Amino acid sequence: MLLEKINEPNDIKKLSPDELPVLAKEIRAFLLKTLSVTGGHVASNLGDVELTIALHRVLDFPSDKLIWDVGHQSYTHKILTGRRDQFASLRQYGGISGFMNPDESSCDPFISGHSSTSIAVASGLAQARQLKGGRENVVAVIGDGALTGGLAYEALNNVSRLKSNLTIILNDNHMSISENVGGMSTHLSSLRTSSGYKGLKNDIEESLRKIPGGEQAIKRIRRTKNGIKQLLIPGMIFENMGIMYLGPVDGHDIGSMIRLIRQALTVEGPVIVHAVTRKGKGYLPAEKNPSLFHGIGPFDLATGKPLQKKEKPDYTDIFSRTLVGEAERDKRIVAVTAAMGIGTGLRRFRRDFPDRYFDVGIAEGYGTTFTAGLAAGGMLPVFAVYSSFLQRGFDQLIHDVAIGGYHCVFAVDRAGIVGRDGITHQGIFDLSYLTMIPGVTVMAPKDGRELKRMLTFAIREMNSPVAIRYPRGEAADLSEESLFGDGEPIEYARAEIIKKKSSDRVLLFAIGSMVGTAIEAEVILNEAGIPVSVVNARFAAPLDKDFLIRECDGYDLIVSMEENVRFGGFGEKVLSVLAQSGYRGDFLNISIPDEFVPHGSCEELKRETGLDASSVAAAIIKRIEDQKIRGGSR
Amino acid sequence: MLLEKINEPNDIKKLSPDELPVLAKEIRAFLLKTLSVTGGHVASNLGDVELTIALHRVLDFPSDKLIWDVGHQSYTHKILTGRRDQFASLRQYGGISGFMNPDESSCDPFISGHSSTSIAVASGLAQARQLKGGRENVVAVIGDGALTGGLAYEALNNVSRLKSNLTIILNDNHMSISENVGGMSTHLSSLRTSSGYKGLKNDIEESLRKIPGGEQAIKRIRRTKNGIKQLLIPGMIFENMGIMYLGPVDGHDIGSMIRLIRQALTVEGPVIVHAVTRKGKGYLPAEKNPSLFHGIGPFDLATGKPLQKKEKPDYTDIFSRTLVGEAERDKRIVAVTAAMGIGTGLRRFRRDFPDRYFDVGIAEGYGTTFTAGLAAGGMLPVFAVYSSFLQRGFDQLIHDVAIGGYHCVFAVDRAGIVGRDGITHQGIFDLSYLTMIPGVTVMAPKDGRELKRMLTFAIREMNSPVAIRYPRGEAADLSEESLFGDGEPIEYARAEIIKKKSSDRVLLFAIGSMVGTAIEAEVILNEAGIPVSVVNARFAAPLDKDFLIRECDGYDLIVSMEENVRFGGFGEKVLSVLAQSGYRGDFLNISIPDEFVPHGSCEELKRETGLDASSVAAAIIKRIEDQKIRGGSR
Repeated sequence: MLLEKINEPNDIKKLSPDELPVLAKEIRAFLLKTLSVTGGHVASNLGDVELTIALHRVLDFPSDKLIWDVGHQSYTHKILTGRRDQFASLRQYGGISGFMNPDESSCDPFISGHSSTSIAVASGLAQARQLKGGRENVVAVIGDGALTGGLAYEALNNVSRLKSNLTIILNDNHMSISENVGGMSTHLSSLRTSSGYKGLKNDIEESLRKIPGGEQAIKRIRRTKNGIKQLLIPGMIFENMGIMYLGPVDGHDIGSMIRLIRQALTVEGPVIVHAVTRKGKGYLPAEKNPSLFHGIGPFDLATGKPLQKKEKPDYTDIFSRTLVGEAERDKRIVAVTAAMGIGTGLRRFRRDFPDRYFDVGIAEGYGTTFTAGLAAGGMLPVFAVYSSFLQRGFDQLIHDVAIGGYHCVFAVDRAGIVGRDGITHQGIFDLSYLTMIPGVTVMAPKDGRELKRMLTFAIREMNSPVAIRYPRGEAADLSEESLFGDGEPIEYARAEIIKKKSSDRVLLFAIGSMVGTAIEAEVILNEAGIPVSVVNARFAAPLDKDFLIRECDGYDLIVSMEENVRFGGFGEKVLSVLAQSGYRGDFLNISIPDEFVPHGSCEELKRETGLDASSVAAAIIKRIEDQKIRGGSR
Repeated sequence: MLLEKINEPNDIKKLSPDELPVLAKEIRAFLLKTLSVTGGHVASNLGDVELTIALHRVLDFPSDKLIWDVGHQSYTHKILTGRRDQFASLRQYGGISGFMNPDESSCDPFISGHSSTSIAVASGLAQARQLKGGRENVVAVIGDGALTGGLAYEALNNVSRLKSNLTIILNDNHMSISENVGGMSTHLSSLRTSSGYKGLKNDIEESLRKIPGGEQAIKRIRRTKNGIKQLLIPGMIFENMGIMYLGPVDGHDIGSMIRLIRQALTVEGPVIVHAVTRKGKGYLPAEKNPSLFHGIGPFDLATGKPLQKKEKPDYTDIFSRTLVGEAERDKRIVAVTAAMGIGTGLRRFRRDFPDRYFDVGIAEGYGTTFTAGLAAGGMLPVFAVYSSFLQRGFDQLIHDVAIGGYHCVFAVDRAGIVGRDGITHQGIFDLSYLTMIPGVTVMAPKDGRELKRMLTFAIREMNSPVAIRYPRGEAADLSEESLFGDGEPIEYARAEIIKKKSSDRVLLFAIGSMVGTAIEAEVILNEAGIPVSVVNARFAAPLDKDFLIRECDGYDLIVSMEENVRFGGFGEKVLSVLAQSGYRGDFLNISIPDEFVPHGSCEELKRETGLDASSVAAAIIKRIEDQKIRGGSR
């Protein structure tokens, strides 16, 4: 096994050129064997094995800086930098991350999880190097999907000022997570299909050569004034922005890649190497269905079938079905996604209403403003988007959606702790960044049934901006736990009483996923002799102030519960209302502490952050005991 | 006067073509006369008079939808839609806005204040029209500066899907607020300078025609496969993205503009009309110094000199001078701006350290990530940016700056109420969106002297992400009001006592600009027989918990004071600490109510939002009286 010789950064340089394709094969086998057990990002990592090998032959680690965009394509990089033995722990709590992570290796110079950041980061590193007179190479690897993000464009627009080298590898697999969209994609496609990768330049020149006087025409064109020479080479969209373009090259041809990367590194200034690769390369199930193998759990190696079968519907499914039902009723409904059509459950909508479905690419800022524009034009848009990605649309939410007060529905999926994707993907800020915006209604369902009711409410009953945040994974079903079976109908800014006796001295006022946790904690507390009321807040904005003001005096301790950071979150708002109401009892804020949350299973992470039922119950018991020592709550 | 005939939308169509240049002249004179009194955005509005006239000749209002990017270039549009008589109230409290505003006129279809939104909004309106089978025209006008924003690119990348017309007028004045940067700018410049605006197409074709067989070459090239035909026309960066390009055209030639706009409207699908204009056109002082006349107060019409002379330095000046001093000491310091070099006071830095100064264009997302990259590369970057614009870098603050914990300094200018720019520009969210991010230190100075100390502290003493937010305008000088004269030195997470007696029953715990207000309120309250302590929080994150926990029991009422929205802001955090400390006294949160703040003078707006000293004192007196009625605070 050649792979056994690769134990440290730069070990790959000891192999002979002939051994490299063999190594690629071994890496693919290793990745498949490991990922079929751990799960992870399969398709993209199978696609860039040769590209990574070529980079590692040329670059020196850790002095050279290699930035992988959306770091989930960096598995081979991790293997080649001495982390092969840790792959069994991939994406596990305490194990190696599924993304780039400087805490893990000095060969990971920068964190990356969100898309389209690599060129911006690399430009900062390259500019710093230029100022310090350093000699290290700075290389960014970015997928074609990530090029749809405005951040990547802003970076491309800025790198032309660099006087020293910055090499950008465009890893063009003709596909972002679901499918690429837009003009840039069309442009890349035209480059990619230009005859035999020879490029348009040869194409034109050949055309001209066949004509009498053509040679002279070529020369003449070449001599013509500034700018025109760029017309005759491919990649002019980059060349026009002051970035040299090399390629396209077959990204699975290690030798060609090495030559082109070497050439690129000698250029003073920014240069793009356009490498064409295939997602899922070398594993037929992944080649055939790269979307399924984008991020996947454990799967059967022989068949490619996921091992864990879904038994209950998840929140995404419920959103998906409810939305399609509403869209049948109301023709104004349109759906928007930012390259997450499958992840957010919009596949069904797309099938049934292709004209009313818009995938804007990895462009959440645009998605948000586009949504507002659709609403201003008389549509009823629903933007389905992951919580951590909607952070990219924060200003647009304020400026384009909220000031105008448009009836846009934001279906904020993956809200709260998301698990194995880890630190960059946790959806733990949305209750804060959404509720601070005037006029935006923010709801969170306690279970799947309530998501359905909330979405229907948001579509039918509202006429202003509204967000519904719901977690990743299987939908809770709390119908039996509620006093009201199927639950009371949604009323604007009204909480729902789950369980309440006038003798209760403690109130759990929970939102979203934490309602289920509150119900569990209630059982533990009851056994400990502490009867508690449980109320489902439903609305984070506006809060049910009437309920809080009316009922708070009955309690000695009110506990807010949310799957969100404390600062700016639900609990601080609850406390604020209590203070205004003159409540003088005790208050406990259960939320995510003021720190980032790493990767692991959702259960582990909830335990670690104190959000599971046992931790919540323990915190409440401790608070009550502290109060007794301090001499009562009043 | 032709202008007197223009009293309603579409009135301009009654004029003869020959009268249009006369009208343009009258509008310029009117604008200059009005703006020299009210102040406003002069340069951009003088630049697009003919362009606007041409649009209004062709379009029907309000059925057609015209979206002005960064709506401050819409003054002529306002004049032509019946708002001429209201110009004396421009940007005044209760008067017409300096930006687009649907509440003001049905001819303003969408709000716009921030840059680069117009194509995104227009694409939503056009898509909605297509779905509804409407026939109205949708036109966006965007400056070349705004094209540096990723949102504009994301929109360009998406409009190619449109099957119906969307006309984009590129108002190319070769300059954003200070100066254009980047590859796109270079590209536009090459288009602009192509000989006599005839375009590169003619250029090449003419070159070929002079050669024997050249005609055949032209035909052959035209026949060659997909994509190649685009090589022979200008604007290929747009054509490559699936957008038809027309131009460039002289944007001051009304007849040509009308013809080209008419032509553009007949195209099925997106089309760009490239109009070249001159900022400040027709007024020499503005032509010579468009940056000064970007947004300006009242000025002398004859000389172009501002009427209001600055007597005291403003916060921006103090930031500017302090930063230059620090940069002389520490070579690692670099400065970043997003097209706001002058507004944020970096002109001096640029002069002294041109290699360490980076204007990234209107690209706050990139600016933020680039800043993080510079820090990762060993620099000490200071990103000077307006509060409301940094909203565009929110995700990048979390993902690229805070997770990595880089020592980046954010100089957040125009924080709080900004006055006449109004609703889209108020910097009233930063205390919320910054303090929710783990590991980001957030400070706000009470006066100019403290800004200097805080910036020095942030640069010399910190080693993690830090933001300092400070208001627009003249710097307060509170040195005499403080017990400690020049103020105590900054200590991490430590508040500063301004005035405190053990007999005080009320504590004003204020941050930033509100410390001065607290000092004023103290005088009023003292006269009313209510002695109060005044403490300068200095840090919004982390709060001085020790102080609050140690001292709170001495008070019956603690008042938090901030120039920021209540939700997620400083006050909620103060209350949260008080609740944890077991404080059982009363609490009053002075902050901006949960609504957007319109335009007007800062004084008016502070009064309206209850942030001026009289309002604060009145609120405190009322609270104390309410408490007495309720029967005491405990």
